Amino acid sequence: MGQMIFRETGGAMLHFENDYNKGAHPAILEALMSSNFEGLSGYGSDSYTKTVTEQVRQLTDCPQAEVTLLTGGTQTNQIVIDTMLAPYEGVLAADTGHISTHEAGAIEFTGHKVLTLPHEDGKINAEQVEAYLKDFFADGNHSHMVYPGMVYISHPTEYGTLYTEQELEALAQICQNYQIPLFLDGARLVYGLAVPDSPDLATIARLTDIFYLGGTKAGLLCGEAVVFTKNNQPKHFVTHVKQHGALLAKGRLLSVQFHALLQERLFETIGQHALEMAEQLREILRDKGYTFYLESPTNQQFIIMENSHLERLGQQVAYSFWEKYDVDHTVIRLATSWSTTQADIDALKSLL
Amino acid sequence: MGQMIFRETGGAMLHFENDYNKGAHPAILEALMSSNFEGLSGYGSDSYTKTVTEQVRQLTDCPQAEVTLLTGGTQTNQIVIDTMLAPYEGVLAADTGHISTHEAGAIEFTGHKVLTLPHEDGKINAEQVEAYLKDFFADGNHSHMVYPGMVYISHPTEYGTLYTEQELEALAQICQNYQIPLFLDGARLVYGLAVPDSPDLATIARLTDIFYLGGTKAGLLCGEAVVFTKNNQPKHFVTHVKQHGALLAKGRLLSVQFHALLQERLFETIGQHALEMAEQLREILRDKGYTFYLESPTNQQFIIMENSHLERLGQQVAYSFWEKYDVDHTVIRLATSWSTTQADIDALKSLL
Amino acid sequence: MGQMIFRETGGAMLHFENDYNKGAHPAILEALMSSNFEGLSGYGSDSYTKTVTEQVRQLTDCPQAEVTLLTGGTQTNQIVIDTMLAPYEGVLAADTGHISTHEAGAIEFTGHKVLTLPHEDGKINAEQVEAYLKDFFADGNHSHMVYPGMVYISHPTEYGTLYTEQELEALAQICQNYQIPLFLDGARLVYGLAVPDSPDLATIARLTDIFYLGGTKAGLLCGEAVVFTKNNQPKHFVTHVKQHGALLAKGRLLSVQFHALLQERLFETIGQHALEMAEQLREILRDKGYTFYLESPTNQQFIIMENSHLERLGQQVAYSFWEKYDVDHTVIRLATSWSTTQADIDALKSLL
Amino acid sequence: MGQMIFRETGGAMLHFENDYNKGAHPAILEALMSSNFEGLSGYGSDSYTKTVTEQVRQLTDCPQAEVTLLTGGTQTNQIVIDTMLAPYEGVLAADTGHISTHEAGAIEFTGHKVLTLPHEDGKINAEQVEAYLKDFFADGNHSHMVYPGMVYISHPTEYGTLYTEQELEALAQICQNYQIPLFLDGARLVYGLAVPDSPDLATIARLTDIFYLGGTKAGLLCGEAVVFTKNNQPKHFVTHVKQHGALLAKGRLLSVQFHALLQERLFETIGQHALEMAEQLREILRDKGYTFYLESPTNQQFIIMENSHLERLGQQVAYSFWEKYDVDHTVIRLATSWSTTQADIDALKSLL
Repeated sequence: MGQMIFRETGGAMLHFENDYNKGAHPAILEALMSSNFEGLSGYGSDSYTKTVTEQVRQLTDCPQAEVTLLTGGTQTNQIVIDTMLAPYEGVLAADTGHISTHEAGAIEFTGHKVLTLPHEDGKINAEQVEAYLKDFFADGNHSHMVYPGMVYISHPTEYGTLYTEQELEALAQICQNYQIPLFLDGARLVYGLAVPDSPDLATIARLTDIFYLGGTKAGLLCGEAVVFTKNNQPKHFVTHVKQHGALLAKGRLLSVQFHALLQERLFETIGQHALEMAEQLREILRDKGYTFYLESPTNQQFIIMENSHLERLGQQVAYSFWEKYDVDHTVIRLATSWSTTQADIDALKSLL
Repeated sequence: MGQMIFRETGGAMLHFENDYNKGAHPAILEALMSSNFEGLSGYGSDSYTKTVTEQVRQLTDCPQAEVTLLTGGTQTNQIVIDTMLAPYEGVLAADTGHISTHEAGAIEFTGHKVLTLPHEDGKINAEQVEAYLKDFFADGNHSHMVYPGMVYISHPTEYGTLYTEQELEALAQICQNYQIPLFLDGARLVYGLAVPDSPDLATIARLTDIFYLGGTKAGLLCGEAVVFTKNNQPKHFVTHVKQHGALLAKGRLLSVQFHALLQERLFETIGQHALEMAEQLREILRDKGYTFYLESPTNQQFIIMENSHLERLGQQVAYSFWEKYDVDHTVIRLATSWSTTQADIDALKSLL
Repeated sequence: MGQMIFRETGGAMLHFENDYNKGAHPAILEALMSSNFEGLSGYGSDSYTKTVTEQVRQLTDCPQAEVTLLTGGTQTNQIVIDTMLAPYEGVLAADTGHISTHEAGAIEFTGHKVLTLPHEDGKINAEQVEAYLKDFFADGNHSHMVYPGMVYISHPTEYGTLYTEQELEALAQICQNYQIPLFLDGARLVYGLAVPDSPDLATIARLTDIFYLGGTKAGLLCGEAVVFTKNNQPKHFVTHVKQHGALLAKGRLLSVQFHALLQERLFETIGQHALEMAEQLREILRDKGYTFYLESPTNQQFIIMENSHLERLGQQVAYSFWEKYDVDHTVIRLATSWSTTQADIDALKSLL
Repeated sequence: MGQMIFRETGGAMLHFENDYNKGAHPAILEALMSSNFEGLSGYGSDSYTKTVTEQVRQLTDCPQAEVTLLTGGTQTNQIVIDTMLAPYEGVLAADTGHISTHEAGAIEFTGHKVLTLPHEDGKINAEQVEAYLKDFFADGNHSHMVYPGMVYISHPTEYGTLYTEQELEALAQICQNYQIPLFLDGARLVYGLAVPDSPDLATIARLTDIFYLGGTKAGLLCGEAVVFTKNNQPKHFVTHVKQHGALLAKGRLLSVQFHALLQERLFETIGQHALEMAEQLREILRDKGYTFYLESPTNQQFIIMENSHLERLGQQVAYSFWEKYDVDHTVIRLATSWSTTQADIDALKSLL
């Protein structure tokens, strides 16, 4: 399975293939423009970065949160995992986790094994994790094996699904029992937060040891905000980031954008818009009799389509190939985002 | 599952827990003694290493074979895999493969992912490998994934089983089609070669791109002989070995031992002896009604035992815990080797 | 020595501490805005990236040039060096080279040693390189040493100096003789190209094996354009980039900016402007009797100042501490850029 | 400079090129033989390893010493440095240190920079180290640089010289002030301990944080005993060792040898014998008018020879090329060891 890289085919194309095919939300561009001629210091030491940290602390109700801004998701996963683990430790993840499948070995590149557990709708649960940890330490030869040193979850998952607060609580409890951190990949967290009754930022900060709030897929040109919530940021973290080649000279590019995303809770507006568009999309698909691969409450929708229909659809609608379903059918992804318009939805409706 | 590290409990103990609990075959020690005062150059540039290369070329019927002597199996797997793969490549292996489970992440330490396939009796087959490779390259996103760059097999496997010549042929063919090397971990190859009608050294050299002939488990104090068979030894291999911390100053320790192991085909004598002992062991176990976990033709035998019997047995016989079978039963390993004596077998018989 | 990270102190501050303290050149922002709602594919597969490659090919007169856009200088150095070197190779560089001193070990992080040569005004020369290479291969033990596998130079150097075409020719010749690539770090290349009679893009493309054109310091929000000039881009380069955590989902952020920088040779306008400002700065400094640490023809100027004057200056002018000169004096850097205005220069003049 | 790898030229050759051209001291071989049929557990969990730890604790007067046995010097340096340093830290060493020059980048392979200081007779001193550390932390940009995280010294050095107790005290004091460990590479420590009034094992254990007692050059087939002296062995050290590919299945090979080396202080007998041979060698060289490159009190002697004499000498005496002295002269090394006989010395005398 995987995310097909959309090939541009012309201006008339409707873009539902992913949530990063447009530039940036206008308010983000506006923030970059209005701050453009301020003289700011480099490498994340600018005043906007400090303000973003304050914003995150308030939004997460976590006064000790430490925030670092990075450019992309794979980079963030690599740096967090590498700096939080001992060299002999690996990271537990769903077999469908982004770090397991679609990061070109970026985790192994830094010396760590991804220890996979079978997923259910993209999720892993506390029982699985506990069983793995228990069996590991019960094995008389575990000193010859890779220590499980962290639990990685995506929220929303690669299938658009969400953990409930209870599920996060249970995972957090196991991690605490075994004294290993729980890391939440929030590349699409903005679209999870907008789902009613799903865990809010304060809950996520409370139950995880590290998480990140994705900007790239939420209307920024680029950027992910890593939050260490338990006074647990690795020592000399800026040097770690530099050593991984991930420290931007103009840190302002990230901080000005995140400042705007968090100000007046723009991220909520963005999330709600995308979910409204997704809700309409789901209705259209349901009405037209499409089969959903699974139920996703967020901005990514997965449907099973006949291969013969796919080619026709692809001429006017950009979608993502997700995985082969059977000989005649394919699972595809359609995604909404901050940039999806009512006109896009209406046009799609007429085409499906 | 795993190999329990035997805890020494006293002189009366019968040693069937593994094939490396004694020192070295007397002929090996004799060779070290008789060469002890020869002045030899260091770092694998000695005359014995050259002779070993010649011996291997003759035994494998492979005049272009390049031989490097290393100290242990994990080290060998790490160096071969790291130096043969491009940085973005991983290695395909059975999920029970030693590199997958019991090398403490030594492969990931050098940046490479172990891509696992479900095993059958410790083996993988050509169909699985072909399907994996085909699916990988058919996936439009494979440039975001770890490239499969090598196939790793153990022969004998971690379960004592062997590949047939036909099976190796099929694997070799797929590897050739996809232009990736086939690497055979022969940590216990000596005990595989002694099985009638199993692939001989020339066949193995012909069908693999790299293999090694294990010495540690075949009566050497330490040592594994890596053989590049296709004029494919990585450039500046000695520097690679040094950089991995694996180049011995007294390379003679390895070369003198391997010289003796290969001379007059001592390895065959050793292999045959261990298999004779294993044959007697199997008969005893069969006669006494033990249940075999699977059928192994080599020196490792796996049986399912009631937990209640295990503790009693463990007081007089050293065995290896292999894996939990069910609540009341355990899979254990009993192994013979060059050092197993008829007296050992007879004593075991009286105890079982 | 090093680049002091400027601490923001207020709006009245004059910014001469570096060339990256403002956002982006207005034409760059304009390009981001005007393309914002184009649906573009991700990960560097967008149409702007293709156009940038064409632009580079024309500007460098190098039809086979391959272009990859990355976010920052350390990241670029790390990826180029790691993917071009064999594991047992290191990179030759001036002891003042950015990779030697100020990248937090990013090169060693990927396993490669930086082999340093003493600099002269930030430069190394062909004689030094040749002597090193000759001595290395003449040493009977070189297989126990790190192979010199690449030559790295900065142009402009960390001291603002430039290589002449003859100097580049000589370095290129040695590299060719020893079959190792010559890599030019052009983080500030735009400011070098604007110096009359200095090597132009075609010359640089002809004489180097890889170089990059820096965007971050030339008016982009971020971005460096890596150019492989000799049909020598490492295989599966996009996967390498991903594995290093450096592949942006919205590759458009980089390509749209570079498209604008290269279009109508905006980079030349930017370079000339900064050099005009630097010329005025030099005159002011000369007239006021300041002592230059060395002669730099580019946008960075290094002067030796009495420590007692520094504190006073620092209250109104942001500068970079460079290195201690003696007990009473310090070397500081003043830099101009695309964003330096005549008003900045005039204000500085009145303060010095 | 470097250690020429001696090419074997025939039985009549006198071996003074290094201290590892013969096999093992007879008492070591005897120990291997007499223990050969003891059933011992693997991977360093055998009873001999436990005894060696007790022996080391007594010899070093350091009851909390933790001992791990590894196979070779480069491997030991790599593992100690990699496991003791944070990822962003490098190791301070003399520019002539073995890790700087002759380990093929094994330290950088694990991600760490070797930070070099100019040597004097192979040594570095406390003032140098203090100045480096002071300057580093005073540099406002040190977060962009490699942190100095350990001090590495060789004792004896690569030039056969020794640190005095006072020099070690001073280094230890600086390291303590900056809270970084002092690591002593004792590949030839046995030959240093035999020098009258030089630091003894208890002093070395008291003043260093980690050191190792070399076996390979002291009459073992292979082996280095790493000693963590300050209750500072990295957690899960056996797993670290395994992950580096350095854990021997038959750990007994190392422990049985070290047990014999330490028993009845055999290492002292070996050291004293080699130094007596070296003393005779020095006298012969002095009497014959050879020029010493520097004064070495241990088993390695460095002399400056006319190139024209070298070729002639090399026909009967194996020596090591060390470095070019000038156009007409070369620095060579002659070494004695446990295996040097009076007959060797007498024969050499007649040839010089």
